[in-house]
Amino acid sequence: MTDTAVQQGEVNVDAALVRRLANTVRGLSIDGVQNANSGHPGLPLGAADFAVTLWYHFLRFNPQDPRWPNRDKFILSAGHGSMLLYSLLHLAGYNMPMDELKSFRQFGSSTPGHPESFMADGIEATTGPLGQGFANGIGMALADKLLAARVNTPGAELIDCFVYALVSDGDLMEGVAQEAASYAGQLGLGNVIYLYDDNSISLDGPTELSYQEDTAKKFEAMNWHTITVDGHDPVAVASAISASQRVTDKPSLILCKTIIGYGSPNKANSSGVHGSPLGDEELKLTKENLGISPEAFHVPDEDRDAWAARVTELKGGYDQWQAKLSAARSSNADKVALLDAFFARELPADLESKLPVFDPAKPVATRTAGKTALQALGKELPWLVGGSADLSVSTNAIVSDDKVLEGEFGGRHIFFGVREHGMGGIVNGLTQHGAFRGFGSTFLTFSDYMRGSVRLSALSEIPAVWVYTHDSIFLGEDGPTHQPVEHYAALRSIPNLSVIRPSDATETAYAWLAALEDRTHPTALLLTRQNLPVLDRSTDEFAPASGLRQGAYILRRERDSKLDGILIGTGSEVQLCVGAAQLLEKDGFSVRVVSMPCQEYFDKQPDSYREEVLPTSCKARVAVEAGVSLGWHKYVGFEGKVIACDRFGASAPASRIAQEFGFTTENVATRLRSLLK
Amino acid sequence: MTDTAVQQGEVNVDAALVRRLANTVRGLSIDGVQNANSGHPGLPLGAADFAVTLWYHFLRFNPQDPRWPNRDKFILSAGHGSMLLYSLLHLAGYNMPMDELKSFRQFGSSTPGHPESFMADGIEATTGPLGQGFANGIGMALADKLLAARVNTPGAELIDCFVYALVSDGDLMEGVAQEAASYAGQLGLGNVIYLYDDNSISLDGPTELSYQEDTAKKFEAMNWHTITVDGHDPVAVASAISASQRVTDKPSLILCKTIIGYGSPNKANSSGVHGSPLGDEELKLTKENLGISPEAFHVPDEDRDAWAARVTELKGGYDQWQAKLSAARSSNADKVALLDAFFARELPADLESKLPVFDPAKPVATRTAGKTALQALGKELPWLVGGSADLSVSTNAIVSDDKVLEGEFGGRHIFFGVREHGMGGIVNGLTQHGAFRGFGSTFLTFSDYMRGSVRLSALSEIPAVWVYTHDSIFLGEDGPTHQPVEHYAALRSIPNLSVIRPSDATETAYAWLAALEDRTHPTALLLTRQNLPVLDRSTDEFAPASGLRQGAYILRRERDSKLDGILIGTGSEVQLCVGAAQLLEKDGFSVRVVSMPCQEYFDKQPDSYREEVLPTSCKARVAVEAGVSLGWHKYVGFEGKVIACDRFGASAPASRIAQEFGFTTENVATRLRSLLK
Repeated sequence: MTDTAVQQGEVNVDAALVRRLANTVRGLSIDGVQNANSGHPGLPLGAADFAVTLWYHFLRFNPQDPRWPNRDKFILSAGHGSMLLYSLLHLAGYNMPMDELKSFRQFGSSTPGHPESFMADGIEATTGPLGQGFANGIGMALADKLLAARVNTPGAELIDCFVYALVSDGDLMEGVAQEAASYAGQLGLGNVIYLYDDNSISLDGPTELSYQEDTAKKFEAMNWHTITVDGHDPVAVASAISASQRVTDKPSLILCKTIIGYGSPNKANSSGVHGSPLGDEELKLTKENLGISPEAFHVPDEDRDAWAARVTELKGGYDQWQAKLSAARSSNADKVALLDAFFARELPADLESKLPVFDPAKPVATRTAGKTALQALGKELPWLVGGSADLSVSTNAIVSDDKVLEGEFGGRHIFFGVREHGMGGIVNGLTQHGAFRGFGSTFLTFSDYMRGSVRLSALSEIPAVWVYTHDSIFLGEDGPTHQPVEHYAALRSIPNLSVIRPSDATETAYAWLAALEDRTHPTALLLTRQNLPVLDRSTDEFAPASGLRQGAYILRRERDSKLDGILIGTGSEVQLCVGAAQLLEKDGFSVRVVSMPCQEYFDKQPDSYREEVLPTSCKARVAVEAGVSLGWHKYVGFEGKVIACDRFGASAPASRIAQEFGFTTENVATRLRSLLK
Repeated sequence: MTDTAVQQGEVNVDAALVRRLANTVRGLSIDGVQNANSGHPGLPLGAADFAVTLWYHFLRFNPQDPRWPNRDKFILSAGHGSMLLYSLLHLAGYNMPMDELKSFRQFGSSTPGHPESFMADGIEATTGPLGQGFANGIGMALADKLLAARVNTPGAELIDCFVYALVSDGDLMEGVAQEAASYAGQLGLGNVIYLYDDNSISLDGPTELSYQEDTAKKFEAMNWHTITVDGHDPVAVASAISASQRVTDKPSLILCKTIIGYGSPNKANSSGVHGSPLGDEELKLTKENLGISPEAFHVPDEDRDAWAARVTELKGGYDQWQAKLSAARSSNADKVALLDAFFARELPADLESKLPVFDPAKPVATRTAGKTALQALGKELPWLVGGSADLSVSTNAIVSDDKVLEGEFGGRHIFFGVREHGMGGIVNGLTQHGAFRGFGSTFLTFSDYMRGSVRLSALSEIPAVWVYTHDSIFLGEDGPTHQPVEHYAALRSIPNLSVIRPSDATETAYAWLAALEDRTHPTALLLTRQNLPVLDRSTDEFAPASGLRQGAYILRRERDSKLDGILIGTGSEVQLCVGAAQLLEKDGFSVRVVSMPCQEYFDKQPDSYREEVLPTSCKARVAVEAGVSLGWHKYVGFEGKVIACDRFGASAPASRIAQEFGFTTENVATRLRSLLK
């Protein structure tokens, strides 16, 4: 051990027992991979000793109550080692039957190639895309800190759990992990203890090809506590975990030196063992070498007994916590009510009535309206927290002025720094934790930087809210590097993600409401930098903005029963459609304006509603959106037109850009008129 | 200075002169921002002293030959400080007239809000999206190392230049920069000298809100040399640059402590000066405070004289280099020929004839065919280099077995580590350097991790090649975290990027050829993990794969002159279309199969060609692609169908996935048959 300050671990570790339990985990893991004829044996073989040390001696959980609020979380950030996690879940009594281990990587099993959080209890995060689990854990640890600041009282610490993760070389090379590590150090998250499977091998070969930095020193520079240990020595690992628990003002990284594929006589310490089954012969030799039964998926009775005893022991701690909670229900009723409310994340029935009302006489940017809406809703929803990647002054995604800072976790406004990807992973973890719903904001063009996390929010059905402002070429002078054009289509392409681009302040308020009403999917809100007119919905001219919930609605009805053409717009282009419809009316045409803030919502509507809004009989349609045309032919067909921006933007004032790129009322009218002749 | 080993700078610095020159740069910068009423005065004011020290005393360039191969490169990674760069280009004699400074951020100017590399000589990289310039510079430095290893001989070092960059807090917080930094340290790139504008202020306020790590220690842990200096002290800065030049086995980071908005009496050292014009009054006060003329866009004659003298001095060095080159043309003719060939990056006229031929009897994955094609082409094209984000064993994107390692720059196979975003930025820099064309590879799903760089390759017209394998749900057991579905549409949404998904080995070879033939746009190659049949193009049944160059072509013509329906497929789904057409023929239908590997190419074809392939009269069309349907209605209209995967995938063997998701010959036939009835 490099850290001489480490005291003897407080936990009494029976190294032989841990090694035996670890070998059983190894056997299950390589059997699973071999049975599937696909998977990654190297990590489970290498990491089993320290992983079992953690699970058997430290991790606090109750498999009968897998969402226990004060459980320790364990994240397998190196998700390719999934059989390690599935094996541990099985042995620790979670709902992970042996048949599932035998169905590893098969259709319909709860044991996919990489862990998916919604597949089984005890899988805290969807991992595999490297670095994401690392960041998710920081988000969960932040959530626990935020929660503790709200519900703990001296003597009644309801939340004092840890977040553990197993991270790999690959995790640590990823920028998303480095961003999250930097921010975790910034916040001094002492409830983070990560174990690094430091085996000097990656897929392409030894890490000396690509990764030789001084990891401990690097993390210390980011305000982390680090210890280096032999990852195959349970006593040393336990001592390091204990020491890390005592460091309460810094996250900890334990560098566990291991041999990848440990136990495999011919493949250990080689990249060949990383991602391919051992093969029948080497599997046999490995089991012999480890001294475990040749029988497939074998668990010795004494292992079952040992795990059962540990789970019983943990149940004791769980019961104590429940007793503490019960006591607190009388002594600190308000705190416990808060705890319940946070994990319920209920929306008040009258939430819609709390939406702000905007004055049609005062044009306002939807980013600004978004702030008004967010703060109005935030007052009702104490579990709504979030922030920005160093752009809150610009995105206006500020739920309250109470800052989240090191040692100050009572706030709600999070300063993620210029770390979009880390923000994405942290917000995912924060939201998946269960007590909060998180949001993160940046400019729309920088959604690219965090796409890996946005995808996982959608895949894992995490109801995060991604607030993306400066949503078009009309941000103006900052130029094409900052002007999104492809991002509408790129975000819409992600399954399970709702992309909402509201057309004015009132729609923006409904967009926030809709995002929060959807409790199982993430939402991206695309908001303008520039001011937009506020449509006067009190008049007959414009329909109520609640139509946003249907994704598209008839914003402004055609003048008479004859429908000549339809203009479909989103966001700032809806005003152009309204203006064009008015122009065309002067020419005697009867034109409908459809506001389509959310294609995903609209596509889920019944056929009858979609037909009502966009009647098949009306082929004269023009869609207007200041981004690429990709995807719009679905709504306008071969016979319609799309006014789009199928190129990168330009640096200039917004009004000039609108002229140059054809986003004018006149051009919209001209294009539809050409279809009406 | 923290580094006591720093010797007295070799350069004789007149601090008063540098400060005067810097103040003129400050004046031009704040005038530009004020004139545009938009922009970022804080960085130019803060960084001018050290930037001018660098430009005036160190940077080797010739404004008359802006692409001089041995010039030092300067990258303004913190692109928001663009007026600093434009001002320096103007003063240093580049083709950057004063009128352009006065047209800052206006339509049609060469001075957009953030620097764009194609806008003017001397702008080495498009910057603004933070961290990208940092990574680009690493790519350029790597290119210089690769080039030096090829063309230098003892006594005739044709390439010995440096890459300098100005980086900010925001750059260093970004994961893409951290990844690139880690890899630069790994390679020991001693030709990198970055100056960090360490001003402790970011957009949202003081960096203590979000970024307090020990940057020097962190970079030292990544094998960088660091020095900390007062960024307003030209002598100290010069000494640090000289010291950094002497450290030849490590990249250098010079932490320049500065005051953001230096000189502004009321706004210096505040986030308010970061991104908003000073205002007329504060601008006036700032100029008074700095002791410079109140006149807008004023350059004193003595400044012009000083810069002219410096440029003349630099011309001497340039002439010496040209003399060395001339001498080498006789003494080392082969090396000089190589130098010329690298910067020409010409394709031999007979390159198509070098494409590999594949045996129709042997199914092969397109990732494997891609390797065969890459290596065949690579033999002809010595300037083609690249690698993988630790997945070369899987992506097979290996141009040669000669590795690029620290101190070994004669190779071509680059081990980027698990750093997709860093790889993207490095490949962009490597390619933009001019002597190489770079490629980078990973799994298609992880294109998300590097999208920021892919976008910039497209925006800046950098002809990089992005090789994305494991291109569909048919990668199988690794599951939804690794299975791309939205990525086809997401990549196609990017303007200027050609996305090619070849249907078999032969198309794959043409895809590589097409990618290389396009010298102004990046290309993404989407390749399978699984084996695919090799179509026998020697028969009448299948058209030649050269049709790929048109983006879509009639792969298999309908049976008779009557055209009943069209099946359109890409990649692995083309074989399903062929099978379905054969099935439907048995039912008496005459069905055309169109292979559409590249929508971008197809959309650029003349109307006549597009009409020939997809006749308007034939509305019975089914498009088949194992990704989201977004975008396909453009080719099938309201009346056609899309067989797609509008959800995340599943972990299972590929054959089972095909059954479950409807990607079978039978289903394709059934869907088209329903349109034919």
